[in-house]
Formats: sequence, structure tokens, C-alpha cells
Amino acid sequence: MGEVLVKQIFRDPQSYLGRPVQVSGWVRTIRVSKSFGFIELNDGSFFHNIQVVFDDKLPNFQEIAKLPIATALRIEGELVESPGAKQPWEIKADKITIEGLSASDYPLQKKRHTLEYLRTIAHLRPRSNTFSAVFRLRSLAAYAIHRFFQERNFVYVHTPIITGSDCEGAGQMFRVTTLDFDDLPRDEEGRVDFRQDFFGRETHLTVSGQLEAETFCMAFRNVYTFGPTFRAENSNTPRHAAEFWMVEPEIAFADLNDNMALAEEMLKYIINYCLEQAPEEMQFFNRFIDPDLLARLDNVVNSDFGVITYTDAIELLKKADQDFKYPVAWGADLQTEHERYLTEKVFKKPVFVIDYPKEIKAFYMRLNDDGRTVAAMDLLVPGVGEIIGGSQREERLSLLEARMRECGLDFANYWWYLELRKYGGTKHAGFGLGFERAIMYLTGMANIRDVLPFPRTVNSAEF
Amino acid sequence: MGEVLVKQIFRDPQSYLGRPVQVSGWVRTIRVSKSFGFIELNDGSFFHNIQVVFDDKLPNFQEIAKLPIATALRIEGELVESPGAKQPWEIKADKITIEGLSASDYPLQKKRHTLEYLRTIAHLRPRSNTFSAVFRLRSLAAYAIHRFFQERNFVYVHTPIITGSDCEGAGQMFRVTTLDFDDLPRDEEGRVDFRQDFFGRETHLTVSGQLEAETFCMAFRNVYTFGPTFRAENSNTPRHAAEFWMVEPEIAFADLNDNMALAEEMLKYIINYCLEQAPEEMQFFNRFIDPDLLARLDNVVNSDFGVITYTDAIELLKKADQDFKYPVAWGADLQTEHERYLTEKVFKKPVFVIDYPKEIKAFYMRLNDDGRTVAAMDLLVPGVGEIIGGSQREERLSLLEARMRECGLDFANYWWYLELRKYGGTKHAGFGLGFERAIMYLTGMANIRDVLPFPRTVNSAEF
Repeated sequence: MGEVLVKQIFRDPQSYLGRPVQVSGWVRTIRVSKSFGFIELNDGSFFHNIQVVFDDKLPNFQEIAKLPIATALRIEGELVESPGAKQPWEIKADKITIEGLSASDYPLQKKRHTLEYLRTIAHLRPRSNTFSAVFRLRSLAAYAIHRFFQERNFVYVHTPIITGSDCEGAGQMFRVTTLDFDDLPRDEEGRVDFRQDFFGRETHLTVSGQLEAETFCMAFRNVYTFGPTFRAENSNTPRHAAEFWMVEPEIAFADLNDNMALAEEMLKYIINYCLEQAPEEMQFFNRFIDPDLLARLDNVVNSDFGVITYTDAIELLKKADQDFKYPVAWGADLQTEHERYLTEKVFKKPVFVIDYPKEIKAFYMRLNDDGRTVAAMDLLVPGVGEIIGGSQREERLSLLEARMRECGLDFANYWWYLELRKYGGTKHAGFGLGFERAIMYLTGMANIRDVLPFPRTVNSAEF
Repeated sequence: MGEVLVKQIFRDPQSYLGRPVQVSGWVRTIRVSKSFGFIELNDGSFFHNIQVVFDDKLPNFQEIAKLPIATALRIEGELVESPGAKQPWEIKADKITIEGLSASDYPLQKKRHTLEYLRTIAHLRPRSNTFSAVFRLRSLAAYAIHRFFQERNFVYVHTPIITGSDCEGAGQMFRVTTLDFDDLPRDEEGRVDFRQDFFGRETHLTVSGQLEAETFCMAFRNVYTFGPTFRAENSNTPRHAAEFWMVEPEIAFADLNDNMALAEEMLKYIINYCLEQAPEEMQFFNRFIDPDLLARLDNVVNSDFGVITYTDAIELLKKADQDFKYPVAWGADLQTEHERYLTEKVFKKPVFVIDYPKEIKAFYMRLNDDGRTVAAMDLLVPGVGEIIGGSQREERLSLLEARMRECGLDFANYWWYLELRKYGGTKHAGFGLGFERAIMYLTGMANIRDVLPFPRTVNSAEF
């Protein structure tokens, strides 16, 4: 008799009903009367528990009856119908083996805990309903992203984590070093001599894989990255983490319209995949985390996303019958309140804002013919604001160089990036999706610390 | 007329033959006679080029005829049969548009370059046949790994890159810091005060996600990580990089036998997926990189992997009719020469060596009943030696603590890891596959620098 996963039973009960089964899992709850008892067992393969019924015919009935929750068990028995229970089937146990006893001071007792408290036991919280749902969804969403791009013949490229360049030209970066702090090498002028560091130069953790991804884009046409990125930003907010994952596709022979179409298709694909593959988790989020969640996602999946230029958006915001905390003026960045007004009040669906003033966007974005805006796009979604940022890239060498000069960038750090424009550089575009922002959007979770397995934030790197 | 990928034409030529098509790509070669010419065009979607025929009826014939290679073109024309050519079809061009001109000093001219030289132009090398094949295979193999685990209901967990702990208890690690080297904060005793660093403590780049993955394993039963890991090892060899990707599954209610079965199934799955999805690339590797490649992979896929204990392996090696550079003695680690002897000469197929002396293995491995070996497994494969290392983990708290004491580990850094054993810890196992080693094995490439998009090694972090 082979072991079976609880998920297999729930997805195909008829194959197991009336037959001997063996499952292993952890006790979520246990209720005992004089001669029989019920165990809610979770084996991690599925969101819901399976009910196990046992009685005093078991030789170790007394021992089982007193088990602390979280104990690991192996159950041998028969899958039977259970008309009275929440689930229409349960396992009638013939034998229960203790695989790993738990201690009675198990921190995840049945009472509800705050999310803040659960962060302090990040090694145990995936065993709670909420985090079991969040982290399974995270896994499925990650896979949805790979599926989406691989089905479309995109090449997945692992851009480097340790980098000598700074993509945005303005990132706050973590230094990576093996130098001995108590014996720092100095050059003749007394400056720290990074030529003696591990890589023979100053190195940092990447803030984006885009520039390197562009090199692969010019070889494979359609590529994507999906990996960790870093910001050493001292911002203690529910939306910022020092370490987070980013998805960055890059497509050649493509302009901003192609880019928008790809972003829309990708976002819908991820949502649909999660709704199909994790219906139990999505129902849970809608019931306990965010009652508007499913309606909102449904709206995204069934909308044709809107498009508006930044200039038109500013006009709309100026005329808005709403007071904003931050002033609205052409040339200023849109704040979350502005973004949410546009997507929630004006469009009532996701909307791309395009063609931003070049001064508030990165150096690599393609200059529009008006000479003052660039072919940027931010995707705004109801409930959040910006979730994707991207652009068509400047493929014209002279314009790129001019812009880099304006931004004060050192050409020596970008020689290879510039060469892409020299050797058959063609129009191309791409965007970045902050993976945690996407998971927050898909689950309704309000704090980025609760969608990262082990969040790294200012003053916090436990586990 | 929509754009079509060259891969679509090659995979389904009948759908396009005799019809107008539009493709975009880069010139690999161009040959011109007086009134007509041939372009080998590669669009990055497919390993092979498509041949484009053009003649002087094109208004820009003279301009096209003189194009430097690597120029980006858009071709509009008709897919026609081409009985004489290598490929039985070609595009007869009606219109050729220059999307991005290349310069005449393009470094990847037709002559063969050394792999060493190509490393210095890592931003261009994916456009060469060899690296186009390597990096597409890398992408497919990565996806194969995700597919394999997701199809089996494993949860993908993003373990942290920045860490306060040191998994192996012995890794050489990179420090991550935002401290100002010219103004290091000091405590009362004059030591660098890491409480003032970004995370309020010392942090490093992870050497393995295993310990964190175990926490998720105790919640989801079957999990895997797949992400970057780091070693600050000063070893300038063809097999070591400072930054590389690791796959680390972890399975609960599972012992060493389950672990071996999983590793065997996974490795065969990856190989089969690559053979199916990238037949052109695999043929190329077999022809130009390693003439034994396909035979070797075929042997792996069709073998039942062997198993031998370390103790028996030592006996075999002692009796071997071969001189080894390193001595063979119970208690010493197996060297690559020993590993290759076992897998190539004795077993002639992949073989697991299990039950190593505890002294040469990590603290978390499960002590066998003999008291001197642990339930470790290394998978050795012909042509390489070790490709996978894993173990059943020590789930018994008292034995784990005793071993940690022997290794001199600070319990304070592992409180959460120890708690896994306290709260329903059950038997579990896992392994690590070095992704680059796997890609080297799948392609025949001999240097790890040639399977990493932008390798990071001692004194090298360009791009």
C-alpha cells in the first residue's frame, strides 16, 4: 500500500473511496471522547485538512488521544464516506504511527495570531492557514510566469546578482566584499583599495537585470529574467523590502504597443493560472483577507486595459473633483493617490500611463519625437496603483549617449551596453514586474513582509 | 501580414510555404553576386538561420548588398521551396528594411574565436552558435526543473539571498554591508559595530537555501528552491564560480531511498526534456563540443542508477588496478579521480555513494545506527564525477545538538532550525544540484565560465 497525498484524495476521491490508504501529515487539531477521536491532519500537499477517525481498538489509543498538535503522524486506514462532516469523506484509521512528536508549547495554537507575531516565527508560519495559502500561491504564480514565457519561446536568462554597474544610475545598493574591516587595504592616496577586493573592483548587489537582459535580447529576440534584486533603501513601509524578486522580459523588434500587449497578456495569464490551480486558496483570501479580491481579479481578467498619456492624465487629475495631498503638475511624478484615482475612479480597470517627461524616467528610455517625453509605460491597477513599469529602450546610439551625458553617467561603466546599439541594435522594449507586489495583489495581503518567506528589511535579517 | 518567428517556420513549414511571411532578425552572413544575393538570417528564436534570397529588383539592392553582418533587418517576402540549399525552404524577399545597422568592426566575424576571447565579449557571445546553443539549453533546463517539481506538487520556495546564518558551518562567504568604509562605526571595545549596519547585524550572501527550505518542508511536505548561491572561494578552476545557481529539493516523510529515487527521476527528466525540446542544439554539442555527449546522456537516461556504500567503495578503490594521485583510505573524502573510476570503470553508469563517515560531511546529516557514518548520498556520473550531493537530515533533536556541539556551532544562530525538530519534526531528506555543473554535463562545455551568462570569479565581475 503506497503513500498517497491528501491532494490526490481531494482531487479524485472516487479512486480511493472504500480502499486502504496511507497518508502522512501533521496534526492541526485533535478532539477525543471516551472511545474515539478525530484528527484534522494536514500533509502540506493541499490547503484543506483530511479528517481521520480513530477509536479505542487502536492499541495506542490513549497515547494518540493525548498528542500535542503539530505532531507528525503516519495513518493507515480506509477512505470512507462521512455524510456528517464538512468533507464528504474521511479516513478510518487502522493504525497510527507517531513519526515526530511535537512539544506542548507549540507556538501556533488554535487561537488567532497577529500577522506581526507570526513574522517572529517565520520558520513555523507556513503551517498556518494564511501562510500556507500565501506561499503555495507564490509558488504557483512563479511557475505561471515561467510557463507563460516558455510557451512563447522566450529564453530565461540568469542575469548576475553581483554587479559592477548600477542599472538605474541612482540605486541605493548593498556592497559585496571580502575585505577585512580591521585591515582595509589602502592605495597611495589613502583610499580603500578595491583592486584588492575579491573581484578586483567595487561590487554591489544588483537592482535590476535589465541592462544585461538587453544583451541577450539582441541575441535571442525574446528573453526574460526572474531573480532576486536588492535595494538598500532605508524605508520602513509595508511595500518595501531590501530583497525581492523581479520579472523582467525584454523583446526585440518591438515597440511600446507590443510591450503593453505583452504585459496585459502576462498579467491575465498569471491571474487565470492561480484561479485555476489554487481555487481553495483564492476562496480563502477572498473570505478572510480581502472581500473584494475575486471581484477585482475578475475585472482585471475580463477588461481590455486602458491607455492614456501622462500629459492627458495630468489634465484629468487637474480637473478631478478630489483633493490630493500631493500637487498635480506636468513634470512631477504621479503619486499613488493619483494613480489610484486614474485606475479606480476614471477607468475603473487597469490602465497604462505612457509617455512620461524624460526628466522623471531612467536614462535608457526612448525619447519621443516631441523631444520632452519618453516611451515609458506604467501599468496602474485598481486597489494598488503601479504594478508594472517599463519602456521602449533608446536604440539610437547618439541619443542614448546624449542622455547619459545629461545624467552624468560614466561611459566606461556602460561600454558593453553602448555597443549593443553599435552592432545591429534594433528597436526593443521591456518591463519589470515586482513579484512581491504581484503576490500582494493576488492574495490581498497588505504587507510585503507577509508574502516573502523570510523578509529582509531595515534592521531585520533573522532566519 | 503578421510577423512570424523562424522557429515557427522550421517547426511547421507547410503552414507557410507559398505564402507571404514577415520575419525580423540579424544578418549572420551575406553573399552577393551581380544581380542577387543570399542572407543567412538568425532571429534568435531558433538555433538555425533562415536563408533569404534577394535580387536587384529591390530598390535598395545596392545598399543591402553591402550590409555589415549583425545588421538587424525586417524581411517581407514569400516562403518558397529551395531544393538546392541545406534547408529545403527559403524566403524570397519582396522588401528588406534595415532596422538597425551594424558597424564594420563587429567583433564576431565569421572566423572561429577561442572561448577565452568570447568571454571578454560576454555581451555579444550569445549571438555565436556555441553560446546561442548553451544559453537556450540553460533556459530549457531551468524550465524542466520547475516543470518536474511542479508536476509533482512541490512548492517552490524563494529562500533568502542575504543571510545571517552559514548553512554548512564552514562556507567562505561574501559580506553584505552598507557601512561607510571611511567611517566605520566602532563599539566601546573598538570593534566594528555591525548593529549600525543596514540589517543591524552581520550579513552575508547565502551558500545554500537548505536550512530555510527545511522549514517549508515541514509545512508543505515537498518543496524545492532554485536560486543563486555564492562562495567566496579563491579558486581559479574551470569548475568554480563565485556566483552560481542551485536546485535544492527537500522532502518530508522520506528517507535516503526516497531521496535517491527523486534525484534519479529528476536527472532523467531534465535530460529527456532537453533532448526533446532542443534537438538541434544537442546535435550541435555532440558534433562540435563533445562527440560522446549523446551516447553518455543516453546511457544515463536508460540506466538504473547503481548504489554502493562509501565503505564498500573504499574497498573497491583499494583493489583497483589503477594508480591514484590521492591516497585511498576510509575516512578521507573521495577525489574526482576516485569518483570517476567508480562510475566509469566499475559501474559504467551513474552511481550513488552513500553512508559517508560523519567527519567529512555536514552537521545536519542523519547519523546511521553504526554511529560513525551518516545517511549521505553523492551521485556520481560518468564524465564528471559528483553532480548531486544530499542526505537524510538528522530529525532527532538530541543527536543534532550533539553533532552541532562537536562542530562548534553556535546554537543561537540555529534556534529556529532546532525548533523544527521540537515541533513535529519528522524524517526528511533532500539534495542539491549545482545548476551550472548540470549544464556543463548536458552540453559538454568544459568551463563553468562558458555556461554562466556573466560569470563572477576571482578578479572578474565585468558586465
